[in-house]
Amino acid sequence: MEVSWEQSVTYSINTIYLLFSAYLVFVMQLGFAMICAGSVRAKNAMNIMLTNVVDAVVGSISFYLFGFAFAYGNSNPFIGTNLFALANIPNENYDYGFFLYQWAFAIAVAGITSGSIAERTQFSAYLVFSFFLTGFVYPIVAHWVWSSSGWLSPNASHLFLGSGAIDFAGSGVVHLVGGIAGLWGSIIEGPRVGRFDAYGKPVPFRGHNASLVVLGTFLLWFGWFGFNPGSFDKILVAYPNTSDEGNWTSVGRTAVTTTLAGSTAGIVTLFSRRLLIGHWDAMDVCNGLIGGFVAITSGCSVVEPWAAIICGFVSAWVLIGLNILALKLNYDDPLEAAQLHGGCGIWGLLFTGLFAKEGFVVQTYNAGVAVKRPYGLLLGGGWGLIGAQVVEILVIFGFVSITMGPMFYALHKLKLLRIPVADELAGLDISSHGGYAYAHHEENHARSYGDYMRMQDNQS
Amino acid sequence: MEVSWEQSVTYSINTIYLLFSAYLVFVMQLGFAMICAGSVRAKNAMNIMLTNVVDAVVGSISFYLFGFAFAYGNSNPFIGTNLFALANIPNENYDYGFFLYQWAFAIAVAGITSGSIAERTQFSAYLVFSFFLTGFVYPIVAHWVWSSSGWLSPNASHLFLGSGAIDFAGSGVVHLVGGIAGLWGSIIEGPRVGRFDAYGKPVPFRGHNASLVVLGTFLLWFGWFGFNPGSFDKILVAYPNTSDEGNWTSVGRTAVTTTLAGSTAGIVTLFSRRLLIGHWDAMDVCNGLIGGFVAITSGCSVVEPWAAIICGFVSAWVLIGLNILALKLNYDDPLEAAQLHGGCGIWGLLFTGLFAKEGFVVQTYNAGVAVKRPYGLLLGGGWGLIGAQVVEILVIFGFVSITMGPMFYALHKLKLLRIPVADELAGLDISSHGGYAYAHHEENHARSYGDYMRMQDNQS
Amino acid sequence: MEVSWEQSVTYSINTIYLLFSAYLVFVMQLGFAMICAGSVRAKNAMNIMLTNVVDAVVGSISFYLFGFAFAYGNSNPFIGTNLFALANIPNENYDYGFFLYQWAFAIAVAGITSGSIAERTQFSAYLVFSFFLTGFVYPIVAHWVWSSSGWLSPNASHLFLGSGAIDFAGSGVVHLVGGIAGLWGSIIEGPRVGRFDAYGKPVPFRGHNASLVVLGTFLLWFGWFGFNPGSFDKILVAYPNTSDEGNWTSVGRTAVTTTLAGSTAGIVTLFSRRLLIGHWDAMDVCNGLIGGFVAITSGCSVVEPWAAIICGFVSAWVLIGLNILALKLNYDDPLEAAQLHGGCGIWGLLFTGLFAKEGFVVQTYNAGVAVKRPYGLLLGGGWGLIGAQVVEILVIFGFVSITMGPMFYALHKLKLLRIPVADELAGLDISSHGGYAYAHHEENHARSYGDYMRMQDNQS
Repeated sequence: MEVSWEQSVTYSINTIYLLFSAYLVFVMQLGFAMICAGSVRAKNAMNIMLTNVVDAVVGSISFYLFGFAFAYGNSNPFIGTNLFALANIPNENYDYGFFLYQWAFAIAVAGITSGSIAERTQFSAYLVFSFFLTGFVYPIVAHWVWSSSGWLSPNASHLFLGSGAIDFAGSGVVHLVGGIAGLWGSIIEGPRVGRFDAYGKPVPFRGHNASLVVLGTFLLWFGWFGFNPGSFDKILVAYPNTSDEGNWTSVGRTAVTTTLAGSTAGIVTLFSRRLLIGHWDAMDVCNGLIGGFVAITSGCSVVEPWAAIICGFVSAWVLIGLNILALKLNYDDPLEAAQLHGGCGIWGLLFTGLFAKEGFVVQTYNAGVAVKRPYGLLLGGGWGLIGAQVVEILVIFGFVSITMGPMFYALHKLKLLRIPVADELAGLDISSHGGYAYAHHEENHARSYGDYMRMQDNQS
Repeated sequence: MEVSWEQSVTYSINTIYLLFSAYLVFVMQLGFAMICAGSVRAKNAMNIMLTNVVDAVVGSISFYLFGFAFAYGNSNPFIGTNLFALANIPNENYDYGFFLYQWAFAIAVAGITSGSIAERTQFSAYLVFSFFLTGFVYPIVAHWVWSSSGWLSPNASHLFLGSGAIDFAGSGVVHLVGGIAGLWGSIIEGPRVGRFDAYGKPVPFRGHNASLVVLGTFLLWFGWFGFNPGSFDKILVAYPNTSDEGNWTSVGRTAVTTTLAGSTAGIVTLFSRRLLIGHWDAMDVCNGLIGGFVAITSGCSVVEPWAAIICGFVSAWVLIGLNILALKLNYDDPLEAAQLHGGCGIWGLLFTGLFAKEGFVVQTYNAGVAVKRPYGLLLGGGWGLIGAQVVEILVIFGFVSITMGPMFYALHKLKLLRIPVADELAGLDISSHGGYAYAHHEENHARSYGDYMRMQDNQS
Repeated sequence: MEVSWEQSVTYSINTIYLLFSAYLVFVMQLGFAMICAGSVRAKNAMNIMLTNVVDAVVGSISFYLFGFAFAYGNSNPFIGTNLFALANIPNENYDYGFFLYQWAFAIAVAGITSGSIAERTQFSAYLVFSFFLTGFVYPIVAHWVWSSSGWLSPNASHLFLGSGAIDFAGSGVVHLVGGIAGLWGSIIEGPRVGRFDAYGKPVPFRGHNASLVVLGTFLLWFGWFGFNPGSFDKILVAYPNTSDEGNWTSVGRTAVTTTLAGSTAGIVTLFSRRLLIGHWDAMDVCNGLIGGFVAITSGCSVVEPWAAIICGFVSAWVLIGLNILALKLNYDDPLEAAQLHGGCGIWGLLFTGLFAKEGFVVQTYNAGVAVKRPYGLLLGGGWGLIGAQVVEILVIFGFVSITMGPMFYALHKLKLLRIPVADELAGLDISSHGGYAYAHHEENHARSYGDYMRMQDNQS
C-alpha cells in the first residue's frame, strides 16, 4: 500500500489551498470582533470583544465534539450521526484540513448573531446561545445544504427539484442563519435603553471608534477571499473539454466576483446615503461592502463578473431599505446584523437563482462533466434552481426560528437574557467584566469595581 | 481537448501562489489606511480612512471596466486597447487571478497619493482624482513597463536601450507614480493651516494615534511579501543549467532582500534621527522601514542580499534629506508620501541600475535561458540598464505631471479641491462626514451636526 | 544538469508552503506588538511598540549576519560555524525560504522578553539585549534542538537518550528561552514603581487598551497557524504503508491540535478566573489562549486532538497558579511573559513527553519509515523521550540564565538598565521618545518636550 507521487502532489496542493483558506476565514472572526467593538459604545467594548473571542474558543470545542459530526456525518439527509470528536478522521472523504475549514465557518455564525444582541445581554446567556447555535443549529443547516447526503444539497444523489440549492459559501447556511438568530434575539430583548424616545423616534447611538470598524471591514474583506474562493475545497480539478481550465480558473473568478459585488455595494451605499443624509459616512461604505459580500457568497462561483455588479447594486438597496424599515419598527440591532446578514443573505440566494450561469454550475458541481441541470431563471435555466433557493430561505427561516426563538424566549422568561437597566446604563464592562476597555488617564490605584475585586483577590 | 495532469498541476500551483500573494497585497490597503489614520489629527481620521476604503471600492470598478485593459491589453507599446470589463478573460495569457493581483496593485497607488493631500481636501475632489489615477494614469505607466508590449518593458521583443527598465514590483510604476501625483496635489493645495508660522517655521502636527501607525506598518510589511515575491506571478519555473533552482529559489531570495532593505533603512533612520533630534522616535523607524521597502521594490528580484542592505542604508538618508528639504521649502505632506514613495522610489530605480546581478536578471526575465543583456553598472553590466532606469524615472515624472498636475489645478481653479478654512480648523470629520471617528464619552443624545442630520433623516 | 519536472513541482509546493507559513509567523510580531501596547499604560505605549519593531529590524540584521549561521551551520553539536551572511545559500539543505522562516522565529524571542521588562527599561539596554538574544543565545539553543547536527535533536544521527527532545515548533527553543530571559530581566530590574504597596500587596495596573489586546491575540492565533503546522517545513512527504497519508495529513492535524489546546486553555482560564475573581475578564481568555498555544507548540505534531484538550486544560492552571505565585513573590512581569512563555513552555515540553503518540512521532521524524523510538510515557513509550524533554528544560534554563542573567546584571551595575524613577512616573514616551502615542485633543502648537526638541531641530 503506497501513496503514488501523483496522489501526493494532489493532496499537498489541495491541502495548502484549503488550510490557508481556512486561516483567512479565521481572520474574519477578528474582523467581526473589531467591527463589533468599534460599533458599540466604549462602555461595552470589552463585553462584545469577549463574546467574539468566546465564539471562537467555545465553538472549537462544541464543533469538535459534535458540531462537525452533525454537519458532515453521513447516514441520513437531515443530520449527521458519526464523526463525533473526529472519530475516524482522516478517512477517504475528510481530512483534518477540511475540519479546520468548516470550524472557521462555524464560529462565524455566532459572531454574526452577537452583533444583534449587543450592549444589553447577560454574558451567561451568550454562552448558552453560542454553544447551541454553533454546535447544533448551524451544523444541521450545513448538513442539509453542504453535506453530500443533505436533502437540499446540489451534490446529492437525488437533487431536490432536480437542482438542489446553490449556496456555495453560505449566504444562507452561514449568514442567514446568524441573521435570523440575531433577529429573534434582538426582538425578544427589545431595543437598548434610550435608543428610541417616548415618541418612538430613534436616538443616534454612535459607535465609539471608527478606526476599529474600518480595520475590521478590511479584515473581513481579506478573510472573504478564504470564505468564497476557498469553498471549492480543492483547486486541482481539471474541467474536461477545455484546453486550460479547471478549479484554478474558477477560484480566481470567484475572488473577482466577490470583490466586484462588495465594491459596488459599498459605492452605491455611500452615494445613496449621501443623497439621503447629506454627508459622506465611512460607516456606510463599510456596511455596504459587507452587505455585498454577504449577498455574493451564495452565487460567487457560478455567476459572471458583470452579474456580481448587479448583485452588489441591489444589496445596497436591500440594506438601506431594511435599515429604514427597522427604524420605523423600532427594531434595534446595534450591528445591523439581521439586515446585513439576514436581508442581504436572502437577496443573495435569490440572485443566484436568477443569474447562475449554466456552464459555471456544471463546472462547480459536476467538475465540468456535461450534464443537464437547472440554472439561473433570467438566463433561461428554468424554475428548478430558483425554487430550491426559495425553499432554502424558507426552511432556514423556519428552522432557526423554531430552535433559536424558543431558546431566547426561555432565557428571557428565566430572567437570564437581559442585564438590569442600571447595569446597561453603566455599561457592561464595568458591571460584568471588571472595568473599562480603555484607561487613558490612569493613576496607579484602583479605579473601578473590577480593580477593587481584583485587589481583594490578590490579597487573599 | 483535454488538460493534461502536468498542466493541471502547473496551473494549480501557480494560481495558489498568485492568488494568495494578491490577498497579501490587498492587506497593504489596510496598512495604508491605518498608517494614514494614525498619522493625521483625530478630527480628520474618519475622512482619511474613508478615502482609503474608497480607493479600493472605486478602484475595483474602474480597474475592472478599463484600467486593466489599458494596462494589459495588447496591440501597441503605449496603451492597451482590449480586455475591457474582462472581455476574453481567461485567455492563454491572463487568468482571473492575474487580474486580481494587478487590481490589488492598482488600488495602492491612490492610497499613496491620498496621504500627501490629507487633512484639507474635499471628498468629491478625492473621488475624481482617485478614479482618474487608478483607471487611467497608473494603468498606462504599467503598460509601458510591465506589459509585454510596453516600450520600456524588460520582456518586450524590442528592448529599449537593449535592456528595458527593471522595475520588478514597481518602485516606479506604483510608488513613484503615487508620489508624484501626491507632490502636485500637495503643492497646488498648499500646506495645512498653521503648519508653518508667519516666519515659515514648521509647527509640529502630531498624528493622533501611534498604535495605528505601528499596526499599519507591520501590515504593510506583511503585504509586501505579496507585493515583491508575488511579482514573479509564477513559481513553477525551473532554471536550466542548475541542479535545483527555479523561481522557487528566487521568490525566497526576493522576500529576504525585501526584509533586509526595509530593516536596514528602519535602523538607520532610527539612529540617524536619534542623533539629529535627541530621542528615539517610533514613527521614524516605521517611516524608514517603508522607505526601504519602496526602494528595494524595483530590484528585489535581481540583487544579492548584501546589496539590499546598501539599498536600505541609502534609502534612510534619502528620506531624511528630503524631509529636511521639505521643511525648508514649506512643503507639507502629512504622510511624507512624496518623500517616501517618490524619493525612495527614484533611488530604488537607480539602485537597480547599479546593483542588478547578471545571473539574477537572466533568471528573472529570461527564465534562466542564457542571453546577454545589460545589468548593474557597478557590477560591470554597462550603461544600458541604468540608462533605461533613468528614462523610466523621467517619463514617469513627466507623464504624471502633465496628467495629474492639470487635473489638480483645474479642481483648484473650480474651487473643488480644498475645503474652507473654517472646515479645516473644525476638522473634516465633523464638517463633511457627520461626526468624529471617536466617541469615548458619549451621552445618549445627538452631539454633532451629523447626529443632528441623521436624526432629521430618521424622522422623515 | 537539469531540474526534473518532478523536482520542480516538489520544490514549488514546499516553497509555497514554507514561505506563506513564514509570513504568518511574521504576523505574530505584530500580534505581540499590539498585545504589549494594549497591556501597558498609555504613557509607555510608544516605547513598547518601538521595541517590538526594533526586535524585527535589528533581528533581521543580526540573524542574517550570524544568528542563522550559529543555528543552522554545521560541523559540531553545539554551535554552527558556517553560513554567515547567507554564504553558500541556497545549498542542497537550505534555501532562502528556510532562512526567512527561521528569521520569523528568531525575532519572536526578543518580543517575548520585552514584555517582562516593559515600562521601566532604558531603550539602549533594550537594543543590547535584543541583539544578543536574537543573534547569539537563541540561535545556539535552536542549533542544539533543531539542527540535524544538534546534540538534543530528534533527527540527529546519534539520538540523545535514544530519543532526542521533541520540541516541534519551540515551546522550549522559542518560548522558554524568551520567558527565562524575561524572568531574569524582570527580577534584576525589580517591579515597576508602585506595583506593590509598602506591605507588599499588589496594586492593579490596568493596560490602557483592551481592543489592542484582543486584536493582538487573534493575530497571534492566526500566526500560530504558520508557527506550528509550518514547522514541518515540507508538505509534500508521503508516508509509506498508508493509502493516502503524508505530511499533508499531519499539518492539518497540527492546526487542529493547536486550535483545541488554545481554545481549551482559554475557556478554562475564563471560567476559573470567574470563580476566583467574580467577573468575566476578556484579558483572561486572551492570556489563557496564548498559554495553551505556547504549551501545545512542543507536541502539536505528535499528539492526538483529545490530548491537546488535556494540554490546554493544564496550561490554564499552570498560568493561573504561576500568576498567584508571582504576586506572592512580588514578581512584576507586565505581560506575564515568564509565566506564559516560561511556565506553559515547560508544561508543553513535559506534556509531549507524556502524550506523544508512537505513530505520529515516526511520521514526523522518520517520514513514516518504521523504526523503534521512544514516545509518550503515558502511552507506554518509555522514559527516553520524557527524559530528553526534562534535559531540554534544564539546559535551556541553565544556558539562558548564565548568558542573559549576567548580561542584565552588568547593564544594571552600569546603570544602563532601568530608567530614573521620575522618568518612569512621567512615562517612557514623554521622557525618551519625544511625546505620547496618542493626541486626541491636539492644538496646533508644541505640547511636549519632544515637540519642542523637534521644533528646535526643524529650525536649525
